[in-house]
Amino acid sequence: MCPTMSTTSSSSSSSWRTLKIGIIGFGTFGQFLSKTMIKQGHSITATSRSDHSQLCHDLGISFYRDMDRFLEAENDVILLCTSILSLSNVVNSIPFHHLKLPTLFVDVLSVKEHPKEVLLQVLPPELDLLCTHPMFGPESGRDSWEGLNFMYDRVRIRDEAVCSSFLQIFARKGCKMLEMSCEEHDKLAARSQFLTHTIARVLSEMKVESTPIDTKNFQTLVQLKETTMNNSYDLFSGLFIHNKYAQEELKNLEVALEKVKQNLLDRMNEELDPSVSKH
Amino acid sequence: MCPTMSTTSSSSSSSWRTLKIGIIGFGTFGQFLSKTMIKQGHSITATSRSDHSQLCHDLGISFYRDMDRFLEAENDVILLCTSILSLSNVVNSIPFHHLKLPTLFVDVLSVKEHPKEVLLQVLPPELDLLCTHPMFGPESGRDSWEGLNFMYDRVRIRDEAVCSSFLQIFARKGCKMLEMSCEEHDKLAARSQFLTHTIARVLSEMKVESTPIDTKNFQTLVQLKETTMNNSYDLFSGLFIHNKYAQEELKNLEVALEKVKQNLLDRMNEELDPSVSKH
Ligand SMILES: NC(=O)c1ccc[n+]([C@@H]2O[C@H](COP(=O)([O-])OP(=O)(O)OC[C@H]3O[C@@H](n4cnc5c(N)ncnc54)[C@H](OP(=O)(O)O)[C@@H]3O)[C@@H](O)[C@H]2O)c1
Ligand SMILES: NC(=O)c1ccc[n+]([C@@H]2O[C@H](COP(=O)([O-])OP(=O)(O)OC[C@H]3O[C@@H](n4cnc5c(N)ncnc54)[C@H](OP(=O)(O)O)[C@@H]3O)[C@@H](O)[C@H]2O)c1
Repeated sequence: MCPTMSTTSSSSSSSWRTLKIGIIGFGTFGQFLSKTMIKQGHSITATSRSDHSQLCHDLGISFYRDMDRFLEAENDVILLCTSILSLSNVVNSIPFHHLKLPTLFVDVLSVKEHPKEVLLQVLPPELDLLCTHPMFGPESGRDSWEGLNFMYDRVRIRDEAVCSSFLQIFARKGCKMLEMSCEEHDKLAARSQFLTHTIARVLSEMKVESTPIDTKNFQTLVQLKETTMNNSYDLFSGLFIHNKYAQEELKNLEVALEKVKQNLLDRMNEELDPSVSKH
Repeated sequence: MCPTMSTTSSSSSSSWRTLKIGIIGFGTFGQFLSKTMIKQGHSITATSRSDHSQLCHDLGISFYRDMDRFLEAENDVILLCTSILSLSNVVNSIPFHHLKLPTLFVDVLSVKEHPKEVLLQVLPPELDLLCTHPMFGPESGRDSWEGLNFMYDRVRIRDEAVCSSFLQIFARKGCKMLEMSCEEHDKLAARSQFLTHTIARVLSEMKVESTPIDTKNFQTLVQLKETTMNNSYDLFSGLFIHNKYAQEELKNLEVALEKVKQNLLDRMNEELDPSVSKH
C-alpha cells in the first residue's frame, strides 16, 4: 500500500514512501504544495475555514468541511498551511482525540518560533513535530524548485521514516535542505524576507510603476513589488507580529533611511554653500 | 574620410557617418561608452581631471591632459561624461575660443534639467546641444545594449547629420530610443532611478547580506544593492542635489515607510488586544 522507494534525487539518497497527508488551511500555499505532493503519489485530504470542495474535487483531493471527519482519515502527516495569524486559534480548535496516533505534525509558516511554541504547548506529547519553511511560493517556485531553500527544524521526531519521507518531497525536487533552529530562522528571515516584503509594500504604498525610461534595476524593483504583493496582507503582518526580530529590523530600516537622507542633505549643503565647499 | 553608411539596425534606417568624438571626463562611464564607439569606427580623444593616459593608450585613444590642446583636435562632438556635481565647474572652464565650429555638445548626465540649464547658459550660441541619458551602465549594459533605454532631448540642433550619427551609436546597438524633455526625464527618474539607488544605499547602510535561507526576491535585492553600490557616491548625490523632484520622492519614501509601519502596528494591536480583535 505504501511502498518504500529509493529517491532519484542527487541531493539525498534516503528512502521514502508515499504518505497520507492531511492539509489544514487550503489557501494559496496549501494548494500550491498539494499539487506537487499529488504528482509524487502522496494521497491528500484537506480541511479549511472556507469551502474549497470544488477545487479539491478537481484536484482529486478529499475535502472535509468538518474537522472531526477530516481527522478520521488517519493521516501520516497533518500539514498546517493556515495563516500565521490564525495558527493559534486553528491549532487550539483541533479535536486531537479524533487522531489516529502517531501522527507527524508539520507547519510551513513563514515565521518559526511562534508555531514551534504554540504547537509544543498544544500538541499531545505523543505527536511528532517538524517545523519547516519552504522559502518559496507559487511565483518563485512556479517553474522549478531546484536550488530553492527549504528550512526545517526537527523539533520532536520519533518516527524517522515518516519525517524523512516528508522531507523527501522537497529534497527530490532539488530544494536546498537546510536544518536550522527556529530561532536562527527568525533572526535571518527578519533581515531578509520581512525586509523584502516591507520594501515591496513601501513601493506599493508609493504607487511606484514602470516608466518609459526604466533602468534594469528599477524594473527589477517593480517586479519584486508585483510578485510580493500577490501575498496576502495577513502573511505580511504575520511576518511582523510573530517574528520577534522584525520590529528591530523595521527600526534598522528607518534608521538607515534617515542616515542616507542626512548624508545627502549634508552633501547638498556642502555643494550649495560656497564657504563649506571651498574647504 | 568620414563615409556615410546605412545602419544595419532594425530600429532605425537613418544613415550615419563616423565621428570625431572628444570625451571630457574619462571615468567609469566615459570609458564604458568609448569602447563601443571605437568598435563602431569613431575616433576618440579624451581629457579628464585625472591622468588616464595609460588606459587611453591601451584603448587607442589620444589623451590630452591639457584642455586647450584637447579642443584643437577639431571634434564633431564633445561628449561630457563628468560627474553631475562637477559639470558646472568643468563647463565653465572650457576655453570655447579654441573650438573648431560648429561642434555638437552632448552630455550623458543622469539628471537632465541641470546640464541643460548650465549648458544653455555657458555654451556659445553657435554650438548645438543634445542632452541624453543612457539608462544603463557598465553592469546592466555589459553583455548587450539591446532593449535598454536611451533618453534624449534635442535641445538645440542645426547639424542634423552629426546629431543623427551620434544617436545611431545607440540605435544601432538596439537601444530603445526615447525622445523626451529634460523635465519629463527628471520627474520620472526621481521616482525610478533615484529611488532605486536610495533603496540600495539603505540596504548597504543596513549591511544587508545574503543568508543561507534567502528567498529569490531577497537575492534580487542583494544583487541590486551590489550592482548599484558600484556607482560612485558623487553620482548618487548628484541624482539628489540636481534633480528638483528627488527631495519630494525621498519624502514620499519616508511617508510610505511610516504608513506601512503604522499599518503593521495597528494590526499588531488588533491582534494582541482581545477587546479589539473580538469586533
Ligand atoms: N505564499 C507563500 O509563498 C508562502 C511560502 C511559504 C510559507 N507560506 C506560509 O503558508 C501559510 C499559508 O500562506 P498563504 O500564502 O496561503 O496565505 P495566508 O494568508 O498566510 O494564509 C491563508 C490560509 O490561512 C487560512 N486562514 C486565514 N485566516 C484564518 C482564520 N481566521 N481561521 C482559519 N483559517 C484561516 C485560510 O483559510 P481559507 O482559505 O479556508 O479561508 C488559508 O488557508 C502561511 O503560514 C504562510 O506564512 C506561504
Ligand atoms: N555609471 C553609469 O552607469 C552611468 C550611466 C549613465 C550616465 N552616467 C553619467 O555619466 C557621468 C560619469 O559617471 P561615472 O559613473 O563615470 O562616475 P561619476 O562619479 O559620476 O563621474 C566621474 C567622472 O567625473 C569626473 N570628475 C569628478 N569630479 C570632478 C571634478 N571636481 N572636476 C573634474 N572632473 C571631475 C571624473 O574625472 P577623473 O576620472 O578624471 O577623476 C570622472 O571622469 C555622470 O554624469 C553620470 O551621471 C553614468
